[in-house]
Amino acid sequence: MDGKAARPARPRWERRAYETEFGRIVAFSDGVFAIGITLLVLNLEVPDVPDADLAQALWQDWPHLFAYALSFAVVGRFWLVHHSFFSTLTGFDATLMTSNLVYLGLIVLVPFSSDVLGEYGNTAVAVVIYAGTLGAAGLLNWLMIRYALRSDLIITERLPDTQPFGQASALIIPGVFVLSIPVAILVSPLVAELVWFGAFAAVRGVRRRGRP
Amino acid sequence: MDGKAARPARPRWERRAYETEFGRIVAFSDGVFAIGITLLVLNLEVPDVPDADLAQALWQDWPHLFAYALSFAVVGRFWLVHHSFFSTLTGFDATLMTSNLVYLGLIVLVPFSSDVLGEYGNTAVAVVIYAGTLGAAGLLNWLMIRYALRSDLIITERLPDTQPFGQASALIIPGVFVLSIPVAILVSPLVAELVWFGAFAAVRGVRRRGRP
Amino acid sequence: MDGKAARPARPRWERRAYETEFGRIVAFSDGVFAIGITLLVLNLEVPDVPDADLAQALWQDWPHLFAYALSFAVVGRFWLVHHSFFSTLTGFDATLMTSNLVYLGLIVLVPFSSDVLGEYGNTAVAVVIYAGTLGAAGLLNWLMIRYALRSDLIITERLPDTQPFGQASALIIPGVFVLSIPVAILVSPLVAELVWFGAFAAVRGVRRRGRP
Amino acid sequence: MDGKAARPARPRWERRAYETEFGRIVAFSDGVFAIGITLLVLNLEVPDVPDADLAQALWQDWPHLFAYALSFAVVGRFWLVHHSFFSTLTGFDATLMTSNLVYLGLIVLVPFSSDVLGEYGNTAVAVVIYAGTLGAAGLLNWLMIRYALRSDLIITERLPDTQPFGQASALIIPGVFVLSIPVAILVSPLVAELVWFGAFAAVRGVRRRGRP
Repeated sequence: MDGKAARPARPRWERRAYETEFGRIVAFSDGVFAIGITLLVLNLEVPDVPDADLAQALWQDWPHLFAYALSFAVVGRFWLVHHSFFSTLTGFDATLMTSNLVYLGLIVLVPFSSDVLGEYGNTAVAVVIYAGTLGAAGLLNWLMIRYALRSDLIITERLPDTQPFGQASALIIPGVFVLSIPVAILVSPLVAELVWFGAFAAVRGVRRRGRP
Repeated sequence: MDGKAARPARPRWERRAYETEFGRIVAFSDGVFAIGITLLVLNLEVPDVPDADLAQALWQDWPHLFAYALSFAVVGRFWLVHHSFFSTLTGFDATLMTSNLVYLGLIVLVPFSSDVLGEYGNTAVAVVIYAGTLGAAGLLNWLMIRYALRSDLIITERLPDTQPFGQASALIIPGVFVLSIPVAILVSPLVAELVWFGAFAAVRGVRRRGRP
Repeated sequence: MDGKAARPARPRWERRAYETEFGRIVAFSDGVFAIGITLLVLNLEVPDVPDADLAQALWQDWPHLFAYALSFAVVGRFWLVHHSFFSTLTGFDATLMTSNLVYLGLIVLVPFSSDVLGEYGNTAVAVVIYAGTLGAAGLLNWLMIRYALRSDLIITERLPDTQPFGQASALIIPGVFVLSIPVAILVSPLVAELVWFGAFAAVRGVRRRGRP
Repeated sequence: MDGKAARPARPRWERRAYETEFGRIVAFSDGVFAIGITLLVLNLEVPDVPDADLAQALWQDWPHLFAYALSFAVVGRFWLVHHSFFSTLTGFDATLMTSNLVYLGLIVLVPFSSDVLGEYGNTAVAVVIYAGTLGAAGLLNWLMIRYALRSDLIITERLPDTQPFGQASALIIPGVFVLSIPVAILVSPLVAELVWFGAFAAVRGVRRRGRP
């Protein structure tokens, strides 16, 4: 609580007293991230063609490679933010643990969404699924950070590191994904995919103010 | 032994003296949980249809998405209980380690059982396999906790955290899964699946009395 | 070197000074074990049959379930021995690290060998591949333990824990697998598979004298 | 900065103060390595042939087994170098973390490249993909080590351990892979594959001067 006003007692567990338990949550999360990001490679299928056609067959598979690179970058960034956020936690409670599980459930969906995008990249449906998964993950992440800030779960001297991720401006990243959904439906899937690159620029801006 | 009566000497290893070994058991268990939960996404198959039929094809695949969400939630809860239980252990012995391995063997089966459920959700056989896997895992978990409580393997001051998970009332969760087996056979698979949601409510009740 | 005669200086790294590095080797090994054991579930395929034939189709798949249970038990035991062995190491050198990598390379092969066994369990070839993988892994494990004992890499007071795993009697486990190879070829695959259960009884005997 | 000249302030995080964060980067990297190396086994497919043809069918699959062994060895070596390099870091910054993520993205590609090689080993395209993935990974690894050395991110007393990996002579390993690309195109894929074994001999030479 670090010298702040008392709150009605909800069960919470201080990191200091539950170091092993805290470590397990982090290790489990890291495991899910590592496996999720690695399963992305299973979307790259080796074509079954005559030797002479291999180069062309692989070349035609570029949407899968593009989806792989994009998803790896996005999940990698999510991991960096998760990593940074959890490093500033002074404790955790049941709400945060359950939210984290749901969040990881969305991260694990990324290899599927990414495969749909690689297979059907020129359809609005695929773009909606992909942007929906990542937008929801980003939004939940933002809500988790807000919740931790409001519940005094952040180490006081690390507040400047985590606060930028909980501000309205940090919503720009999931916002771009959510925004791209109507764009994909009303304009074109390709335009929506171009919008995503705006998200990366935004991430870069926010991250610059944050910590590792 | 924390001031209790002496027992006939079975080899056991105190957490304090074998911190690294204890950490490895936990890390291995976490790894299996993380991989098992992540492999669930492989059950979501990208359909092979013309672009225009994608939305409909994905929509018809909702049983797989339902099985994914259900299994993720259940394995997530199992992990939370495992996490909580192991955090209160003061040591371990060969029985506990072997039981833990068998338990993990059941957890690893979940992606398979879940795939059967997603593929054949309206058959009693699929419901029996799914409920059998989770019922057996829940029962073994309960027996492990009972064994640890009876063998003085729980840190004394953490007893109030773990005791609720070893009481007869905690049997309600695996009990619901076991009970759903005759329901699936005699009544209908759909009714059995509805019974499972009772299990979640029960988990919630038990968890409220436990710790992280 | 724990009070023993000096040896010609080969570069080695004491666990105390390289605790993080030692932890990474152990964590990497645990990761490979956890993933290898979890990938076993991918060998269990959901049949593609009419609803009414599901029970029969799953029942006919029992060799895969048998292979899953056997391989999970065997890899689990390998992990227990690896766990026990590494917990008694006082340091490591390049030979031990390279051997450990090759050993893990054999462990990672188990899901493949297990799949061959599940698919072609009544052929001598499948039995030879399975017994060969596990026999080679067991033999290499034994050689690693012998090497560590001879190179003073075991903590002195933990020597009684590790020495049993390095004695000739511990060779009985890989020995049974190796022995089963000619049995499979000359007698029958089924008899060879029955021989393996002798291996489990042997493991049990050796483990009783060892530590966690 | 260990007594060296001051540099313009780029945000960096000392290992001492951010031990948990540093541990997570290492754990995440280890997880990706462990999963990437384990996924290699999925490239070994169980043939679907009559029992009598199993031995021959497996034998004809030797290119996949060769690709498995080669890739396991190469990824294993990459892990050893990564392990050694990170153990000498005194801190990290955003550049190093991003580079590490990109590097892991290349490592995760290895199971795909390896599968292409196993399937189309006698084509120049497959050799180019495989050598390209590993050459790029090796080159990036070398650049990361150079960057860490130039940015005073290495523990002073561990400099002799890491410097050999950052010298021009260490470029020989990725260099051999890059060199094998024109060889595969202009001469023959087989000759290019033979060139790779030169890379292993080179690795051995460099590693001898390095630390664990």
